[in-house]
Amino acid sequence: MTGIVIREFERAPQDEIDALAGLGVATVHEAQGRTGLLKPYLRPIYPGAAIAGSAVTVSVAPGNNTMIHVAVEVCRPGDVLVVAPTSECRDGYFGELLATSLRQRGVRGLVIDAGCRDVAPLTEMGFPVWSRAVNAQGTVKDTLGDVNLPLVCAGQPVNAGDIVVADDDGVVVVPRARSSAVLASARARLAREEANRARFQRGELGLDIYGMRPRLEAQGLVYYETLSDYHGKA
Amino acid sequence: MTGIVIREFERAPQDEIDALAGLGVATVHEAQGRTGLLKPYLRPIYPGAAIAGSAVTVSVAPGNNTMIHVAVEVCRPGDVLVVAPTSECRDGYFGELLATSLRQRGVRGLVIDAGCRDVAPLTEMGFPVWSRAVNAQGTVKDTLGDVNLPLVCAGQPVNAGDIVVADDDGVVVVPRARSSAVLASARARLAREEANRARFQRGELGLDIYGMRPRLEAQGLVYYETLSDYHGKA
Amino acid sequence: MTGIVIREFERAPQDEIDALAGLGVATVHEAQGRTGLLKPYLRPIYPGAAIAGSAVTVSVAPGNNTMIHVAVEVCRPGDVLVVAPTSECRDGYFGELLATSLRQRGVRGLVIDAGCRDVAPLTEMGFPVWSRAVNAQGTVKDTLGDVNLPLVCAGQPVNAGDIVVADDDGVVVVPRARSSAVLASARARLAREEANRARFQRGELGLDIYGMRPRLEAQGLVYYETLSDYHGKA
Amino acid sequence: MTGIVIREFERAPQDEIDALAGLGVATVHEAQGRTGLLKPYLRPIYPGAAIAGSAVTVSVAPGNNTMIHVAVEVCRPGDVLVVAPTSECRDGYFGELLATSLRQRGVRGLVIDAGCRDVAPLTEMGFPVWSRAVNAQGTVKDTLGDVNLPLVCAGQPVNAGDIVVADDDGVVVVPRARSSAVLASARARLAREEANRARFQRGELGLDIYGMRPRLEAQGLVYYETLSDYHGKA
Amino acid sequence: MTGIVIREFERAPQDEIDALAGLGVATVHEAQGRTGLLKPYLRPIYPGAAIAGSAVTVSVAPGNNTMIHVAVEVCRPGDVLVVAPTSECRDGYFGELLATSLRQRGVRGLVIDAGCRDVAPLTEMGFPVWSRAVNAQGTVKDTLGDVNLPLVCAGQPVNAGDIVVADDDGVVVVPRARSSAVLASARARLAREEANRARFQRGELGLDIYGMRPRLEAQGLVYYETLSDYHGKA
Amino acid sequence: MTGIVIREFERAPQDEIDALAGLGVATVHEAQGRTGLLKPYLRPIYPGAAIAGSAVTVSVAPGNNTMIHVAVEVCRPGDVLVVAPTSECRDGYFGELLATSLRQRGVRGLVIDAGCRDVAPLTEMGFPVWSRAVNAQGTVKDTLGDVNLPLVCAGQPVNAGDIVVADDDGVVVVPRARSSAVLASARARLAREEANRARFQRGELGLDIYGMRPRLEAQGLVYYETLSDYHGKA
Repeated sequence: MTGIVIREFERAPQDEIDALAGLGVATVHEAQGRTGLLKPYLRPIYPGAAIAGSAVTVSVAPGNNTMIHVAVEVCRPGDVLVVAPTSECRDGYFGELLATSLRQRGVRGLVIDAGCRDVAPLTEMGFPVWSRAVNAQGTVKDTLGDVNLPLVCAGQPVNAGDIVVADDDGVVVVPRARSSAVLASARARLAREEANRARFQRGELGLDIYGMRPRLEAQGLVYYETLSDYHGKA
Repeated sequence: MTGIVIREFERAPQDEIDALAGLGVATVHEAQGRTGLLKPYLRPIYPGAAIAGSAVTVSVAPGNNTMIHVAVEVCRPGDVLVVAPTSECRDGYFGELLATSLRQRGVRGLVIDAGCRDVAPLTEMGFPVWSRAVNAQGTVKDTLGDVNLPLVCAGQPVNAGDIVVADDDGVVVVPRARSSAVLASARARLAREEANRARFQRGELGLDIYGMRPRLEAQGLVYYETLSDYHGKA
Repeated sequence: MTGIVIREFERAPQDEIDALAGLGVATVHEAQGRTGLLKPYLRPIYPGAAIAGSAVTVSVAPGNNTMIHVAVEVCRPGDVLVVAPTSECRDGYFGELLATSLRQRGVRGLVIDAGCRDVAPLTEMGFPVWSRAVNAQGTVKDTLGDVNLPLVCAGQPVNAGDIVVADDDGVVVVPRARSSAVLASARARLAREEANRARFQRGELGLDIYGMRPRLEAQGLVYYETLSDYHGKA
Repeated sequence: MTGIVIREFERAPQDEIDALAGLGVATVHEAQGRTGLLKPYLRPIYPGAAIAGSAVTVSVAPGNNTMIHVAVEVCRPGDVLVVAPTSECRDGYFGELLATSLRQRGVRGLVIDAGCRDVAPLTEMGFPVWSRAVNAQGTVKDTLGDVNLPLVCAGQPVNAGDIVVADDDGVVVVPRARSSAVLASARARLAREEANRARFQRGELGLDIYGMRPRLEAQGLVYYETLSDYHGKA
Repeated sequence: MTGIVIREFERAPQDEIDALAGLGVATVHEAQGRTGLLKPYLRPIYPGAAIAGSAVTVSVAPGNNTMIHVAVEVCRPGDVLVVAPTSECRDGYFGELLATSLRQRGVRGLVIDAGCRDVAPLTEMGFPVWSRAVNAQGTVKDTLGDVNLPLVCAGQPVNAGDIVVADDDGVVVVPRARSSAVLASARARLAREEANRARFQRGELGLDIYGMRPRLEAQGLVYYETLSDYHGKA
Repeated sequence: MTGIVIREFERAPQDEIDALAGLGVATVHEAQGRTGLLKPYLRPIYPGAAIAGSAVTVSVAPGNNTMIHVAVEVCRPGDVLVVAPTSECRDGYFGELLATSLRQRGVRGLVIDAGCRDVAPLTEMGFPVWSRAVNAQGTVKDTLGDVNLPLVCAGQPVNAGDIVVADDDGVVVVPRARSSAVLASARARLAREEANRARFQRGELGLDIYGMRPRLEAQGLVYYETLSDYHGKA
């Protein structure tokens, strides 16, 4: 069941991937029907990074990063590595040398449902990582896993070639075949938000912008001037 | 039991509130008898913010931010929104648009026993949030809650009009009626600390500054020159 | 069993300690056979600090920082305070005044398996702390503990005089007597890494640099061009 | 702020309290508008207990059970002890001897937002405890707290004399003054459930019993015979 | 994206499903190449249950069990309900009445990545549940989800018709199409284990039964008679 | 650093070990000065077991139980296996076959800072295990560790030959050389407790039995008849 490497997979158009990076994780998540969000325990090792790329999926044994080295060879510019251990493990699978290697390949970042180390040099070189933990305890190299088979990372199924979008809010995965549709939906959503932002900036309320008042009234929302009024009537 | 909004409540004097902001959460917590601290899992989304304001309390259903929109309308300049879900939920209830709306109202920040998203734009606009999680998964709008009823947020009872003080150390709540007393106590405490700081800076020890030696001796504290001495006598 | 203070203990040569600070926690941990790492839940209160020093160990009761004050008196320049509560407690045992006191003594930082407060002033004064939590709730002063007896901090045994190395990746402890050997081993490791880094920067793969291919083949690693190829053969 | 003991408080009628014990925590929680539930991390130390009683509230310092001893003296038959530490602590504050003492007083059980020990003898003597942890580490006796002041236990405000109901599902608190109303509401709810149970046992569906179909249709629920049908239309 | 119900799906042969129930979760997990295990935080509400069945998958909104009622209607004898919330939620989605309804349909149990309540009556009626939490806080009925679409439950992808096996060790999912192969593999594994068990019972060691000694020697395992011997040579 | 097996070590007298088993973890922990308790997250897989034995220590790689097999060979009747992974891992390292093997050797139980599986058969055969998790995911066999070197298990240092005492309250370790002293101290403590229990059973209060009243008064404990009295005076 392990020890499988798939070298090739289809990627979404690079311009669509790049466009998704600028839209933000929260917007993309909403735009695809509130699906695809990895669990929020994945956090960036430094603030401010915002990337998107094609997923290269890597399944690793606990405490063992052999398959990350194997995966480097099949990465292409614009990819993002997505690593999940076969059982929960917070070891520091990844550090500066692997980042150097991935950067040479044009890889944009790492998403790992485990630990990362070398946080200071990674920050300095600007290689972004979203991880479950920071952990100086590294890994050994002696157990197989898989590259580019489907896996579950932080609660979400990810296939090689799916688009990973990551920023300070977390990580979302977009199925490869849906990239155009999600991009269009996200842009439409942003446009609506832009219009709404202008209204919010003018001081209008969400209650009015979203037309919430009638529904709230129908649901039985009641206003009292003071707490005493409420207690008096309750 | 839900669907109640209280529009008005009494607020502490604004100058007292503002003065508390500068004193720090740790000092205020000590000054009111070591009470009122919200659980330390609430963390600021960016470092360096330090605010105080009158609490507008919002009780929300899991996954549902309807009542935050309702609450905006009753906020005044100098308020701080305090949001607690009726059952544990780490969804991202709050983002940039609501922050824009609150800022228009003069609201100083948000304390939420749940998740927050849009961390990067919130940081850029300088709207501070103390939350339990960062989570790109937003919420929907269809279930009622309450505004300005008493609630428990991160382990502390909060009433509308109580004073919320928040900084890098966390969040503390001061009952409205006690603001003057707590402010006086905090200032006295800071003055003592200032005097002590000077002594610490001169190299004096807490053992002497706080007069701890006699009590320690009475409790049986024993000094040995070396570990061997101790083992020899033990 | 408590109320013991050991005033003196042997320290490693200061130049060796200083040299370890520059090598990084991850490297030191590897260099001493992947031992000595404190649990990764200890996190720095601000990024970028990197220190090493001789451990002064402090065992404290839950909610009680008496013994930290006691410990200050036996600290020397170059020391690092290592504090562990006798049962789990995340109270804020440590703040600005104690840091001021320790700095006067030349202490380089604090490692505490509990909480810390005054994060903003500690950051401003540049006194680094690695803690389990940030917590504005302070402690009281009335229960004894021990200073410079052996203890376990965040999962690792620490003796007074052991060398503590801490940076953004976490905290590792080096037994005093092994400082020379670990330093030599860490330097050798860094030299190898330096050579490898150059190769990674030229685009060589870890698979080749570490000679992994034959072993992977022996373990049964199989490459397929596409997922379809794999499914066709599986 | 600490060191206060209130000897007397009003209790709800004993027959109402006893009646609530038989209704179950889930029912009582629903019956009072889904309020008052303590956080579900409180678990019984053995299965099968189901009690109700008047709360005697005890605030304790971390690692210190002095005030539980103080509280015993003010307990009466039918009471339940509700203990909360002033900062998070999982020490084993309570064991067999205190249970023996409480049983002599007619106390029905303990709810503690901390640890409990002597699980085997407590199980044998049938003294029920709902706790956050089982922990053999006991506490010492040297710091004051309060008895019968209002406190927050596991996220819920509790006042002396409030009614605590606890069973395998957890712990719920009913404000003293609401006991009659909640009891009536809970009984009505149980009667409805009894009727519904009979319908469920006959094979009727909740969709019909609760009249959910029209609303679901209005919300847009769509049925497909097979996944292929759905994909064909989607 | 939500509000979809798929009525029909293919099920594995009932005799294969029933056979898997008797083999145990650990064995089935090994037999399918160490895949398919749900996260171990899912625990049975009472010990001793061991079931298998065809998955009916239910995606629910946080705090909302509408779709469980919808799912009951499409269940058949031998099914197991698999419920996952769209964001983390530990509310008590499920209790005695739903269990009564499901039992009428011949459903064998529930696996839920959330909370369950009515533990005592569920235990009495022998309806097994594997849940993330026990929580008396129930849910409301007003938000759509999906039935029998693919989902991720406790870290594993589950499709309608997949086989769910659950016992005191946890929960594993077997893809429907692999039931025969996994059953055969599990039986072969059990036969080998049976033979090994006899050898273990005679006192033979795993070192010999599994032929581990040569490999251990090759890896460099070294035996010393005493710790002193080791320190003398190290 | 790994791959070391120490075959022989000194054990405490068997009668002392056996006597400690009957005294209970809480008593032994108190009797040795409140030291030696393993973290309370270790829980028994079934209630009611109470054992003591000489520790055989096993350090294992994450996801790898090779060294447990190695350790079996050096176990003697009356021993208890103490297993700790080199980095956090909750895999199910241990199950029925290893228990069968250990039972043949006269081993009394297992303490493991990781996961255990085969809970139902282990319960049936009455082989007690204290573990951090129940997890059907087993381990593989390919990485070395150590046997009978000192290690830290669940926060406590353990040496081969130390005495492990475990019951429903948790696990405590007694240094081998202190067994007589701890046994004597524990018996004296139990005798005192026995006397106290009789007094508690007669209705005397801890306040009087432990002579707490004068100290409480000195610390400033104040009694009020009612909450109104307190508010009136405060």
